[in-house]
Amino acid sequence: MLERVHHVGIAVANLEASRALYESTLQMKAGLHRVMPDQGVEIQFYELPGTRIELLAPVGDDSPLVGFLKDRGPGLHHVCYEVKDIRQALKDLLNAGLRAVDDEPRLGAEERLIAFLHPKSAGGVLIELQQA
Amino acid sequence: MLERVHHVGIAVANLEASRALYESTLQMKAGLHRVMPDQGVEIQFYELPGTRIELLAPVGDDSPLVGFLKDRGPGLHHVCYEVKDIRQALKDLLNAGLRAVDDEPRLGAEERLIAFLHPKSAGGVLIELQQA
Repeated sequence: MLERVHHVGIAVANLEASRALYESTLQMKAGLHRVMPDQGVEIQFYELPGTRIELLAPVGDDSPLVGFLKDRGPGLHHVCYEVKDIRQALKDLLNAGLRAVDDEPRLGAEERLIAFLHPKSAGGVLIELQQA
Repeated sequence: MLERVHHVGIAVANLEASRALYESTLQMKAGLHRVMPDQGVEIQFYELPGTRIELLAPVGDDSPLVGFLKDRGPGLHHVCYEVKDIRQALKDLLNAGLRAVDDEPRLGAEERLIAFLHPKSAGGVLIELQQA
């Protein structure tokens, strides 16, 4: 069902301040950058063979990241798995007892369908599904 | 410097109880399983193309995972990157301002050299390096 890890999401307070760590220190290759005010996030992908790192910074006071950063501080935020058929995967996982953050898939940063599953139903891990 | 994400580490309170989620619900293929009492952890790898998921459960009251689980609960724990030369990578990253958990590389679950870097110096992310 889960084809591969598409990316590992990392919450940061400020994207500019995090670039030094990921680009200069860890020498990662920057990929897609997008500001998505409607979703309350600014993202920066870094490309590695096989998977990616995604930095997420809050945009606006009602960003879903504000509470996360306040409660837990910056750090690992979610794991995104690619699936062949996101509607079927979501249906199967909800039937198996996982809870949805997104009841219906929606368009993500790369214009592909995504859906999040609630960490309380998945061992404390926020899981993102993305259409392959 | 960082060749790829070798695995994503996820802390769980009890490995047996977590198998249902990873094996039945998420349908992941189980890989290496090891109990390492000297390191205070029991681990279970799951194989995906390109990278892996590693579940870590505490073994013994002085396991380094006991405090993590008490403070943060189960969930994402660390990211492990493969490096070509772990001694050089560790030296370079310490010179760049990261702090080591392990000053010298030590043998990990797969009998390859590993070293952890402190999350406080790396944007809240516990980073593991592993010799490729």
